[in-house]
Amino acid sequence: MAVPSTRPPGVAPLVAMVGGGQLARMTHQAAIALGQNLRVLATAADEPAAQVTPDVVIGSHTDLEDLRRVATGADVLTFDHEHVPTELLDKLVADGINVAPPPHVLLHAQDKLVMRRRLAALGAAVPRFVALDSVDDLAEIDAFAQRLAGSKDASMVVKAVRGGYDGQGVRMVRDLAHAREIAVGYLADGMPVLVEERLELRSELSALVARSTFGQGAAWPVVETVQRDGICVSVVAPAPTLADDLAVAAQRLALWLAAELGVVGVFAVELFETTDGALLVNELAMRPHNSGHWTMDGARTSQFEQHLRAVLDYPLGETAATAPVTVMVNVLGALQPPALSAMTMDERLHHLFARMPDARVHLYDKAERPGRKVGHINFRGTDKDLKDPTKLRERAELAAHWLSHGQWTDGWDSHRASDDKERSDKEERRT
Amino acid sequence: MAVPSTRPPGVAPLVAMVGGGQLARMTHQAAIALGQNLRVLATAADEPAAQVTPDVVIGSHTDLEDLRRVATGADVLTFDHEHVPTELLDKLVADGINVAPPPHVLLHAQDKLVMRRRLAALGAAVPRFVALDSVDDLAEIDAFAQRLAGSKDASMVVKAVRGGYDGQGVRMVRDLAHAREIAVGYLADGMPVLVEERLELRSELSALVARSTFGQGAAWPVVETVQRDGICVSVVAPAPTLADDLAVAAQRLALWLAAELGVVGVFAVELFETTDGALLVNELAMRPHNSGHWTMDGARTSQFEQHLRAVLDYPLGETAATAPVTVMVNVLGALQPPALSAMTMDERLHHLFARMPDARVHLYDKAERPGRKVGHINFRGTDKDLKDPTKLRERAELAAHWLSHGQWTDGWDSHRASDDKERSDKEERRT
Repeated sequence: MAVPSTRPPGVAPLVAMVGGGQLARMTHQAAIALGQNLRVLATAADEPAAQVTPDVVIGSHTDLEDLRRVATGADVLTFDHEHVPTELLDKLVADGINVAPPPHVLLHAQDKLVMRRRLAALGAAVPRFVALDSVDDLAEIDAFAQRLAGSKDASMVVKAVRGGYDGQGVRMVRDLAHAREIAVGYLADGMPVLVEERLELRSELSALVARSTFGQGAAWPVVETVQRDGICVSVVAPAPTLADDLAVAAQRLALWLAAELGVVGVFAVELFETTDGALLVNELAMRPHNSGHWTMDGARTSQFEQHLRAVLDYPLGETAATAPVTVMVNVLGALQPPALSAMTMDERLHHLFARMPDARVHLYDKAERPGRKVGHINFRGTDKDLKDPTKLRERAELAAHWLSHGQWTDGWDSHRASDDKERSDKEERRT
Repeated sequence: MAVPSTRPPGVAPLVAMVGGGQLARMTHQAAIALGQNLRVLATAADEPAAQVTPDVVIGSHTDLEDLRRVATGADVLTFDHEHVPTELLDKLVADGINVAPPPHVLLHAQDKLVMRRRLAALGAAVPRFVALDSVDDLAEIDAFAQRLAGSKDASMVVKAVRGGYDGQGVRMVRDLAHAREIAVGYLADGMPVLVEERLELRSELSALVARSTFGQGAAWPVVETVQRDGICVSVVAPAPTLADDLAVAAQRLALWLAAELGVVGVFAVELFETTDGALLVNELAMRPHNSGHWTMDGARTSQFEQHLRAVLDYPLGETAATAPVTVMVNVLGALQPPALSAMTMDERLHHLFARMPDARVHLYDKAERPGRKVGHINFRGTDKDLKDPTKLRERAELAAHWLSHGQWTDGWDSHRASDDKERSDKEERRT
């Protein structure tokens, strides 16, 4: 379903991206290498991508005219987030705009219920669930809990069907009464609810693939994601404890779903690996994804370049890892302001580089608010780290905590160490 | 000699770069990751860097007011090329601007004679040379040739002392009469001339290092550069035939020169390795350099990130290679227009990616003029390629020639191959 480009020969491709966040920012870095132009639709000039690219449309992703402004003349319109109403995207498609992924496909990344029902219909393994459209359906929770209780003590999760991200809209519940209470809260706001079984997990995984307009697919190694309070804090690539056959099964599942759904672009399938060795689909994303940030420093082709190649229908790039293991950690805004409050992010960066010259830092130039993703750091490991990534992961978490909080959790005294360093550098210069 | 920043806390560093070429373009990519802002002084809005960064000053690098405009408020002023008159830079320094490298240091990358005399005074090995300031000095060439003839048949090179790049201003001469003829040409234009011995070379090398304001140094693996008509066409990292002890000697030489001269930023020492195993300094560059483009895909820290870290006085990043061997090839504008004249650079890129999914492409969005560098491609190799990089280099040159000319020099029929591919993809999708 390749839409022919109307671009005159010799002119570089123009990609329009809805959203001016960090994903658009890092996509711009990739677009520069490929000689392409990226235009972003940002809500404000200080958004991460709007700060670093010259072609910025300020506007709203829920305003049809703003969407038309960013899409005009572009070879393709794609996304840094999945919050654009599909009815607006349908209008753009009717205008002749090449939207990737197409609106009816994107819907599966917007609406958890549509996604779950479609996946169940396709025969993909998903957690057991029940859907509630209004408070009149509340009794469904009781019936569902009773069905689950056969296997476990009705451990459940309540999710808003739409609009959640970074753990928002997802609540672990203590018991049936708590589940009803949470569900009523969403339903009273007019938000349908998904209640699902809470599984015993060995790990959470992400199978990241890309699919081009033409239908070519490519899969990166499957990674383990570690969440804290519903936010991804770190990723280990490849997933260190995952059996080879399960890793292949996860890649095939993601490629198969990408083809069945008709995804164009990068596609993340977030998976649960249960303690009894089953893989179940948790969430879907149709854009570069946090679980793929490691590819910037650990894979032949980064997810940002691959997304551009996929939506512009280039042949896809090699996805092999370039290190035995890569750990990615998110830098989150601190819950408390950094202890050394005089220290800016830039100053913390100096100290990080002094201690860890191998840290691959990616900052988003966002204001540091509690729990907000303001950057990430990649660390490449050795064969030894692949066998046991504990030390590499600890080192990465130390780095992330330092950039967030201005504190070394292992008690390292950066001031003393830098005195030592100064002395040894001087000695070196004398020799 | 760290110049304290006047930047308010919490604000990202601002780096001003003179020149809007591909080096500034790729520096912008690195600045994005570090959360920094890059402002470029470009002569036109369609220059490679000006197309991709929002903070552009249009002006001339020989105009003091334009230089002041780009430098105002910046933490540091640095360079994409070395053509800024040092007398203007001295005025900026007097204004309190942090210029890196400092003007009196940069001079060694501008004036081949100043460089050669300084290096000779320091005791660094350089080719034997003689300098001519005017046509009155022409007889010096004869005396010089006579001195050389003891060892060889007076094989010489004539160079303009200033302003050359990519082989311009450097001429191999056939004999004494030819040498005088070339020298007269430069001297008549008021350009002093350097006449030097032409050595028997085993290889041309580049020792790339960085030095921070504070004086920290870091060296990448030494690379072999291959020139054609004075233009670098490919780089192999590390230099495949270079003995380990010579590689270490080259790195030490570059770090020592960086410290002696007071370089701040990335510093390239172009070296001759003679057939009898000596290393002699040919040229110096004080900025990211073509011989370091491989670091973008083959080293822990790219030269562009390292340059930013050095001029802003961060601790430097790890310089280790991430592949056993990396080959970089330049994509040069074709002497003849591409054979398949209907094929744009972007279309050629599609075909390249179809054949070589591992090609790491970097395009500069420059008009394709004969011999002009319009992009480069990196290929990562294996241990086997390190032992004999012939195949990897041939593959890289095939790729570069394709992007330049729209022709596969090995007769590969991309149309037929893409038919094959389409068939096999369809089969794959059926399974």
